[in-house]
Amino acid sequence: MNPELISQLQQACGNDAVITDNAECWPYGIDNSRRQHAPDVVVMPQQHEQVQAVVAVCFRHRVPLVCRGRGTGTAGAAVPLQGGVVLSTERMNRILRMDPVNRLAVVQPGVTNQEVQDAARRHGLFWAPDPTSAEVCTVGGNLACNAAGPLAVKYGTTRDNVLGLRAVTGDGSSLRTGVFTSKGVVGYDLTRLIIGSEGTLAVITEATLRLLPLPEARQTLRAVYHDIASATEAIVSVMALPDSPCVLEFIDGKAIELANRHTDLGLPAAAGAMLMLEVDGNRDSISVAATRVQQAASNGGLLELRVAQDDAEAKQLWRARKALSPALRHIAPKKINEDVVVPVGHLPELINGLEKLSKQYNITIVNFGHAGNGNIHVNLLVDPDDAQQMTGARQCLADVFALVLQLEGTLSGEHGIGSEKKDYVGLELDTTSLELMRRIKQQFDPAGILNPGKLFPE
Amino acid sequence: MNPELISQLQQACGNDAVITDNAECWPYGIDNSRRQHAPDVVVMPQQHEQVQAVVAVCFRHRVPLVCRGRGTGTAGAAVPLQGGVVLSTERMNRILRMDPVNRLAVVQPGVTNQEVQDAARRHGLFWAPDPTSAEVCTVGGNLACNAAGPLAVKYGTTRDNVLGLRAVTGDGSSLRTGVFTSKGVVGYDLTRLIIGSEGTLAVITEATLRLLPLPEARQTLRAVYHDIASATEAIVSVMALPDSPCVLEFIDGKAIELANRHTDLGLPAAAGAMLMLEVDGNRDSISVAATRVQQAASNGGLLELRVAQDDAEAKQLWRARKALSPALRHIAPKKINEDVVVPVGHLPELINGLEKLSKQYNITIVNFGHAGNGNIHVNLLVDPDDAQQMTGARQCLADVFALVLQLEGTLSGEHGIGSEKKDYVGLELDTTSLELMRRIKQQFDPAGILNPGKLFPE
Repeated sequence: MNPELISQLQQACGNDAVITDNAECWPYGIDNSRRQHAPDVVVMPQQHEQVQAVVAVCFRHRVPLVCRGRGTGTAGAAVPLQGGVVLSTERMNRILRMDPVNRLAVVQPGVTNQEVQDAARRHGLFWAPDPTSAEVCTVGGNLACNAAGPLAVKYGTTRDNVLGLRAVTGDGSSLRTGVFTSKGVVGYDLTRLIIGSEGTLAVITEATLRLLPLPEARQTLRAVYHDIASATEAIVSVMALPDSPCVLEFIDGKAIELANRHTDLGLPAAAGAMLMLEVDGNRDSISVAATRVQQAASNGGLLELRVAQDDAEAKQLWRARKALSPALRHIAPKKINEDVVVPVGHLPELINGLEKLSKQYNITIVNFGHAGNGNIHVNLLVDPDDAQQMTGARQCLADVFALVLQLEGTLSGEHGIGSEKKDYVGLELDTTSLELMRRIKQQFDPAGILNPGKLFPE
Repeated sequence: MNPELISQLQQACGNDAVITDNAECWPYGIDNSRRQHAPDVVVMPQQHEQVQAVVAVCFRHRVPLVCRGRGTGTAGAAVPLQGGVVLSTERMNRILRMDPVNRLAVVQPGVTNQEVQDAARRHGLFWAPDPTSAEVCTVGGNLACNAAGPLAVKYGTTRDNVLGLRAVTGDGSSLRTGVFTSKGVVGYDLTRLIIGSEGTLAVITEATLRLLPLPEARQTLRAVYHDIASATEAIVSVMALPDSPCVLEFIDGKAIELANRHTDLGLPAAAGAMLMLEVDGNRDSISVAATRVQQAASNGGLLELRVAQDDAEAKQLWRARKALSPALRHIAPKKINEDVVVPVGHLPELINGLEKLSKQYNITIVNFGHAGNGNIHVNLLVDPDDAQQMTGARQCLADVFALVLQLEGTLSGEHGIGSEKKDYVGLELDTTSLELMRRIKQQFDPAGILNPGKLFPE
């Protein structure tokens, strides 16, 4: 790596903020996709002006710049495939402002999701995005991938819960987007354009997060169904209620079987699908809301419905869902995990189609996910080291994606494209859209240094 | 106008779909901004392919193309300032699909907001955007301006309630953006980029609208306060409730005085501010919600709080608010109406600042609006034909905008920029953002034919 570049980065951020040692650089080259490529340099700025200087240096030297939070992403977006500079946000970890009256927080990108939740909670507020990795993942990563979790069914995704950004484009220009208000129509919506762009348009240095009042009460329900059709019928009925549940998670029969096998859960043996539901709201109307959901979730295929009477029972009901991940990790540690989405009414066709593909390719497929959004995590239990199995798995995956698109779905609900899915993007997006996206990228990043090789098909 | 262009438009859409007669073209050159400029031709396509052909013709001839719904916009976005072709969406008035299970509707842009509501209501659903002009305004106009109304405080604006678009860019290319699902992270968010772009990026030919379940019940409350500070305190308390009210409208003391003077409303004489509140939800918990709001709205400055016991009383409570517009029209038929936004907690500073400006410039200023969003309609009661008064009014307006920006607000919450506010945009947006927006426009509209002269400062 060019020593001049190193020295300029050191000038920008201080000597102790630049890592060049190969062994020390290595951990900055992986993420949860299990792809790896070490960067040549790691730089750890503390504030906007330093980021601006770093980008300017990379722009001058035409060196790739990849931003990185905690590497919890599963699509490989944070892996510096072409080497170059990794900008770690680990020192940009300050909550700059907490404004409970206006229900907003201004934070640096390296703050973790959990830190935001903790700070907001002290004022009776929360930030809606709740990815499973919330305890460790950063707000910057949430913004880059438009992250979401179970609560999205009621409260939306990251894109729906950010008011504005401060950022640096690929030529080192500084900008502020958005507003500090819950409404605003001045100019194009650059905020939502940058959110979900996986670090290919700009480096986010500050974000104004929209906070919501914490519900006073929450109630948990678990419904077990004979078959997937009954579960889907229940999902559609629940989603037709005026008050959305705050959680509506789905687990298919194969997943129940696995969880049952690895843990003593006592779930009905005939279970073909299970829903985990939560409602939230005022203390004095929560039981009404729970009753409504209970009624909507009840149909001819219902085998068992339990309503948690207290926190302990809620925890107990969640056990079956929580047992799933360890069980899966045990059986297929390197399984392929996709996160496709279809309109809720097409869930039975999706699940039935996946069952057919499972038989056709002789691959166990386990499905669970955020049913209220039609967002299903499709798990192909394969061993990536088995070349023959992987050939089948790749073909199976292509068929899964084709099925999803045929059902008016989308290839990713929350994991993003990164390098994992970029070759499939052209199946979903038309040529005009792709060409416009490429050209938009060129305006933000004229030298093509921001996270090159990601998001777009070759 | 070039006869070849006329004949090509006729070929594209049929002879009866093209208007060239000056007198007939004239009504297509006005909107609610009261600006006027007649187009040279009006074309009325019926479907996507015809729109594509129309844009291609305009692109070849390098002729301005301005899209038009019903002309209810107040910022002049639909006025063809440079003449050319007006594309009226009046024949693109079909609801192409109503999908209650997946809670979406696919509509052409010329469908009115009310037609969508009526069709959705038959399935127990509604579309959240509710501008005052809902009965006549089109979905296309709602999309172009990112329209909103009172319900935005709970359900968001147009941008929050659209899943995807079909559109034609300025060189006649066709694209589909977005998804049919409530989640999706494949590629950049072109849907929200096009929404609110006031016809400067693409012509929208179809929109997939996100529908929501109709609440079963609604309850109306009216609270009158001694002063603006008490009303603001109430707004902040109400917005801190876990369940947002679905309406939270504000009227200032001057507005109450006017409404009182023109109609016998019997409002307390000492009233310094008034809030109209509505809660919605389940039939069996609505009274709990209303009680919560009532408690939150009560403070030392409260003079009177009434809860409607039935529809008739709700209508009666709304009378004071509804009396306001006719009263204002009577006093100042050509008043200047702005729609600025500030964070809710800064409302007292805004209203106090406006009072000072009112005295300084000797101009009556009346304020009301969507308080839950901090979105205030600032009405300067002036006569545009009085040149001297208008000089003061323009200076006053500049001071209003400066005040709003100083309070971390934005210049428009729902009316948009059009030609009315474009000279002020540079006060809010930084040069990098503006430059990026211009360059994004160039990618969508390389010949600059789509609604030229709008949105961007000269």
